[in-house]
Amino acid sequence: MTTIIDVITRDIRFPTSLMLDGSDAMNPDPDYSAAYLIIRTDAADGLEGHAFVFTIGRGNDVQVVAIEALREHLVGRDVEALLGDMGAASRLLMTDSQLRWLGPEKGVMHMAIGAAVNALWDLRAKRAGEPLWLHLSRLSPEEIVSLVDFRYLSDAITPDKAIDILRAALPGREERTRALLANGYPAYTTSPGWLGYSDEKLERLCREAVADGFPQIKLKVGADLDDDRRRMAVARRTVGPDYPIAIDANQRWDVASAIEWVQALAEFDPAWIEEPTSPDDVLGHAAIARGVAPIRVATGEHAQNRVLFKQFLQAGAMQVMQIDAARVGGVNENIANLLLAAKFGTPVCPHAGGVGLCEAVQHLSMFDFVAVSGTMEGRMIEYVDHLHEHFATPVVIERGRYVAPTAPGAGTEMLPASIEQYTWRGHHAETLA
Amino acid sequence: MTTIIDVITRDIRFPTSLMLDGSDAMNPDPDYSAAYLIIRTDAADGLEGHAFVFTIGRGNDVQVVAIEALREHLVGRDVEALLGDMGAASRLLMTDSQLRWLGPEKGVMHMAIGAAVNALWDLRAKRAGEPLWLHLSRLSPEEIVSLVDFRYLSDAITPDKAIDILRAALPGREERTRALLANGYPAYTTSPGWLGYSDEKLERLCREAVADGFPQIKLKVGADLDDDRRRMAVARRTVGPDYPIAIDANQRWDVASAIEWVQALAEFDPAWIEEPTSPDDVLGHAAIARGVAPIRVATGEHAQNRVLFKQFLQAGAMQVMQIDAARVGGVNENIANLLLAAKFGTPVCPHAGGVGLCEAVQHLSMFDFVAVSGTMEGRMIEYVDHLHEHFATPVVIERGRYVAPTAPGAGTEMLPASIEQYTWRGHHAETLA
Repeated sequence: MTTIIDVITRDIRFPTSLMLDGSDAMNPDPDYSAAYLIIRTDAADGLEGHAFVFTIGRGNDVQVVAIEALREHLVGRDVEALLGDMGAASRLLMTDSQLRWLGPEKGVMHMAIGAAVNALWDLRAKRAGEPLWLHLSRLSPEEIVSLVDFRYLSDAITPDKAIDILRAALPGREERTRALLANGYPAYTTSPGWLGYSDEKLERLCREAVADGFPQIKLKVGADLDDDRRRMAVARRTVGPDYPIAIDANQRWDVASAIEWVQALAEFDPAWIEEPTSPDDVLGHAAIARGVAPIRVATGEHAQNRVLFKQFLQAGAMQVMQIDAARVGGVNENIANLLLAAKFGTPVCPHAGGVGLCEAVQHLSMFDFVAVSGTMEGRMIEYVDHLHEHFATPVVIERGRYVAPTAPGAGTEMLPASIEQYTWRGHHAETLA
Repeated sequence: MTTIIDVITRDIRFPTSLMLDGSDAMNPDPDYSAAYLIIRTDAADGLEGHAFVFTIGRGNDVQVVAIEALREHLVGRDVEALLGDMGAASRLLMTDSQLRWLGPEKGVMHMAIGAAVNALWDLRAKRAGEPLWLHLSRLSPEEIVSLVDFRYLSDAITPDKAIDILRAALPGREERTRALLANGYPAYTTSPGWLGYSDEKLERLCREAVADGFPQIKLKVGADLDDDRRRMAVARRTVGPDYPIAIDANQRWDVASAIEWVQALAEFDPAWIEEPTSPDDVLGHAAIARGVAPIRVATGEHAQNRVLFKQFLQAGAMQVMQIDAARVGGVNENIANLLLAAKFGTPVCPHAGGVGLCEAVQHLSMFDFVAVSGTMEGRMIEYVDHLHEHFATPVVIERGRYVAPTAPGAGTEMLPASIEQYTWRGHHAETLA
């Protein structure tokens, strides 16, 4: 019997605030960070499960302690039994009623559970010798459905309906796998659009994005309307009239101001407006979607769980679903989200960037293409060219597309040297000086 | 100048799971706990601000660490400046963008901020020599509105509209204050209704509740329908046909099963159905409300923030609003919730019980009566006769009503001996044995 013998956690922080990379209307000075865990077993193969919660600095220590709270559920467990029924493994962590109270199913504790679930998937995929996307894509519809907690979803999707969706995608699985391995998955880039950049840098990065083959760029907006109009004009002039430019307000507005602001930018033909208001405001997003149509509303990177995604879809509040690999309860809950999107026919364009979010979420989009929605139509994964060098199997982008990873695992393992170098040892010492 | 010199935290846990007190359909074995903080200053008066987040056991350590993360925002601050503008004090904690990422505005980090805000209010009320409810009730409409963050609320309530509501309640303030001091505020009791109790204990406690003058009782439901029908029959037979019995499912159902289950209990004439499904599911609650009318839907103890409360009201998904003193961002955000309720004409019947929740939340209902809604019509505060002996100024219940507290402060201070005795030192040692 193989046993989990340790759960190691690390508080890893990169000093990104020094560069204004990642600055937006709500987050002026993020220090991209990872509350990181490693699951170790006594197997001779030496394989480990790695995963993380992405945060932007302060509070990463809180997130690490939340992961630590799961240790007693994991250490000592039979690895084969745990990994052999990942639906049960997820429920084991999700249904600890005392820990559930801390959300329920949202915020720090829920993200911690998601990271633990993702680390188990990383370990399982490594043991199978497969990249996670391929590993998931080889499961039967029944196995996939067994991973999902349908509680609170049955007014939108049932296990039977999910089986129907997955069976409908069975025929083309092998062909789509080959297509993925040959051509990858579309990416769009947010690299040009951070608020902290000069117009010259914006123009240069827009030009590079088009030259690099990205099918879309995204600009941060929402701090100042004149500024946004000037930057949108620069971007539109640079990329030409037909190239998609998405805009992202990072929760900056109330409902009425969102509609007004987006209408004031409509002449620049935004591809979507992302996070116009509170990520909790389903009804608000629905009102905004009605008010800015035909411009689409995109959200989801801060949607706390499947119950929010369900409502966004039911209310017509989300025309583009942006899952995040590290915000919800891990791979299992994101499969629920993918099934909901397929049920409603809504394209999934994941949030990425941060630390390792590109590496992680590409597996979910690729699994969706092979085994769930069966299409790339209107779909692409966000890409930010940032911090990939710290990962054991960094994403590879070619001609504006994610190259399908072939290395075993979930892509979520950082290099030992990076873990060592960026482990936070300051304990906020700089603020006490 | 008076300065905050320390923030002391404690992980306090009571072994309530041994007694089945507090057992419900989702939480079979809670250990009622408090992630507790004390704000100390260098003032000669020796006054401290006390507050807590209520949790049910495991993970209380995570909640404590989240409170610790706020230390650097508090220690060294000028007390008069901080307490003199509590709107700014709340924003100081809420708008740390790095900490905000951990929610945003939900879960462990948001509750930690709420506890810190509440501790500041406890200190402010003590320094004023007033119970918090009276202290808040003496503020001008403009001062009250300055406490509230209207971001994300303006499609439901604006500062101007809030001022109108508060001005309309100005005339009767003194009369209602006298009425409160003379007669208190209605309570209802959940003590009879925990799932772990025998029918005999249920019947005895129902009889006692009526004899004690409580105007309503509440039963936990949702684990087993036959069981619920039997227990409701016992309770209804005991209290008679006209006495209100609320029922509480603690998030147990999906939408369709909630409607079906409540309809199967309708013959026992439940006063409201509480938490029928996920606390995040605004649209689900709206569907349930339509499906079980005229039985009212009550929820809110797990509503994460004002944005959820706003939507519940907008969608007609909540006929009874159940604020909780320790779930959202503290007194300030609960004032936003009270203003929303007043705007929509929805009665507020706070959640209480747990550890110290009765002591804390009574101040909000009494403030609401004096200065916001101006009425007790259809309103009462939950009461559970449990753990009050650990508080410096425990609630007093007379003839089924909360006696208005007159001791200075927010009611949230525990006795030093209780803090000492129940500070958790086991570090989950019992699970490792």
